[in-house]
Amino acid sequence: MNYQAKVLFAVMLSLAMLFSANAFAGGNVGITLDQASAVVAAAKAKAEKQGTLMNIAVVDAGANLTAFVRMDGAFLGSVDIAIKKAKTARFFNMPTGKLGELAQPGKPLFNIEFSNGGLITFPGGVPIKDKTGNVIGAIGVSGSSVENDNEVAMAGAAVMLK
Amino acid sequence: MNYQAKVLFAVMLSLAMLFSANAFAGGNVGITLDQASAVVAAAKAKAEKQGTLMNIAVVDAGANLTAFVRMDGAFLGSVDIAIKKAKTARFFNMPTGKLGELAQPGKPLFNIEFSNGGLITFPGGVPIKDKTGNVIGAIGVSGSSVENDNEVAMAGAAVMLK
Amino acid sequence: MNYQAKVLFAVMLSLAMLFSANAFAGGNVGITLDQASAVVAAAKAKAEKQGTLMNIAVVDAGANLTAFVRMDGAFLGSVDIAIKKAKTARFFNMPTGKLGELAQPGKPLFNIEFSNGGLITFPGGVPIKDKTGNVIGAIGVSGSSVENDNEVAMAGAAVMLK
Amino acid sequence: MNYQAKVLFAVMLSLAMLFSANAFAGGNVGITLDQASAVVAAAKAKAEKQGTLMNIAVVDAGANLTAFVRMDGAFLGSVDIAIKKAKTARFFNMPTGKLGELAQPGKPLFNIEFSNGGLITFPGGVPIKDKTGNVIGAIGVSGSSVENDNEVAMAGAAVMLK
Repeated sequence: MNYQAKVLFAVMLSLAMLFSANAFAGGNVGITLDQASAVVAAAKAKAEKQGTLMNIAVVDAGANLTAFVRMDGAFLGSVDIAIKKAKTARFFNMPTGKLGELAQPGKPLFNIEFSNGGLITFPGGVPIKDKTGNVIGAIGVSGSSVENDNEVAMAGAAVMLK
Repeated sequence: MNYQAKVLFAVMLSLAMLFSANAFAGGNVGITLDQASAVVAAAKAKAEKQGTLMNIAVVDAGANLTAFVRMDGAFLGSVDIAIKKAKTARFFNMPTGKLGELAQPGKPLFNIEFSNGGLITFPGGVPIKDKTGNVIGAIGVSGSSVENDNEVAMAGAAVMLK
Repeated sequence: MNYQAKVLFAVMLSLAMLFSANAFAGGNVGITLDQASAVVAAAKAKAEKQGTLMNIAVVDAGANLTAFVRMDGAFLGSVDIAIKKAKTARFFNMPTGKLGELAQPGKPLFNIEFSNGGLITFPGGVPIKDKTGNVIGAIGVSGSSVENDNEVAMAGAAVMLK
Repeated sequence: MNYQAKVLFAVMLSLAMLFSANAFAGGNVGITLDQASAVVAAAKAKAEKQGTLMNIAVVDAGANLTAFVRMDGAFLGSVDIAIKKAKTARFFNMPTGKLGELAQPGKPLFNIEFSNGGLITFPGGVPIKDKTGNVIGAIGVSGSSVENDNEVAMAGAAVMLK
């Protein structure tokens, strides 16, 4: 190898090491994947009991997507809604439907949905708390009536309190 | 019941039926959730073997998100990259790295990333085919070197060929 | 040095000068950082008195972000809302709540929130004026009820009138 | 009060309580405001020593904006760049310049900037770690040469290691 080739090789090697090791892994923020998977499974079981087809999203305490499933045949337009519901619930640490009451015309938070790249403020998103009451993430569900969506979200979040 | 109440009742009933039944469920487009879950599980197993922390996304034949997991401690910035890799791979039915070769400066598709709300054209996204060769979806993986990302994506997609 | 090296050297030197000097510093537009910091401090003190957790943003006369703080534990979704409230207040030189009255269904500015990449039109954003009545910027506050948000914003803006 | 008025009053009261209390405050994710303010102050002191005019942004472990200042006369276009540098550094837990080496034409991560609503991959963003090595946030600096930007960012992050 000539000099240039050696330098190039060294650079490539450094870059390879840079990414292949977990040197840059960040500590986890809130809910773990195992926990999020349990939340999703419980929500999906509830949807099956309802006979509904749901999109189910879980975000962590930083409002970052952690787990997602779309049941076969569920609305395509509900992918984004489920994710936005989960983010909205974590952004304000309350059920999305609660926020929605305040976002009606004439109410204090009318058109809050224009913030944060788009919020969803009807029911179906709820914070996920651990047994000590800390918010560790949120779940968002979309695919049926808002009552059904909310019931499925509640069933998912409830897993972390057992 | 007076007339108004009857009308209201009828409307409420219609709305309830509208959403509680699966009247609007779409025929599935490509990969099912069960299949997508198997793809994700195989990809995750590969990542664990590598000792890497990955974001893993699966889209269906319509390029709509079907399943997603973020391993604990995986890059937050890779959530979006994994999803975009999966979509890109399905948008053009080829591995993202293949598209990336054509998207370099001076090449035919330079800056194609500006389309579709943002593409990712480096390795880590691959189409998912069934045994007959039909594209039924795609997988996108992000969290380590592009070589590792791609290897994990390939391991995921391979499940559908067994 | 050969000719190419000399040209390269000259270019590098120019670039270095370009950025290291303040040749391109803009004359300030309205509120200074010292003033904005005083506004933020007064707003934060008010929030502490209320027992609320606020996001506080100050923009200058050009509606560009000048200072921002998020109090520990304040809503994550309020980062963007506080900034948008400040911008909205400066865009139209009026309290955001005043604009919101005109943005209700049936009112002249219904859905004005669609402009400028998203406005927030409920209370919590107010223009900052100097003693001569000139608008020199605006403050946006988000994290509690709109009444509390607005009170904190007013307390911040009041500093410039002392 | 008649019945309707009583119901309305009860609803308004509930809403007022909903927001005025901190019932929905989330636990903090990573860096605190006091820490972020110390980071910003150290960065600003460094910029003053350099004679540069900087935009300085700090995000927490969830990549959410925590503190921001723009020095008088600093580039307006650098507001967004500073914030994006901070987010990018946290998204991938590495200095933005390190990521930029990999994002050049022909390199593994070419055009990664198209993800996450826009990344900035030249120097000036660095992760903030605590003394135990945990990533608790990131700082992004923009306003001068990338060398100066990076030096200021490093000076800011260094505060947390003292």
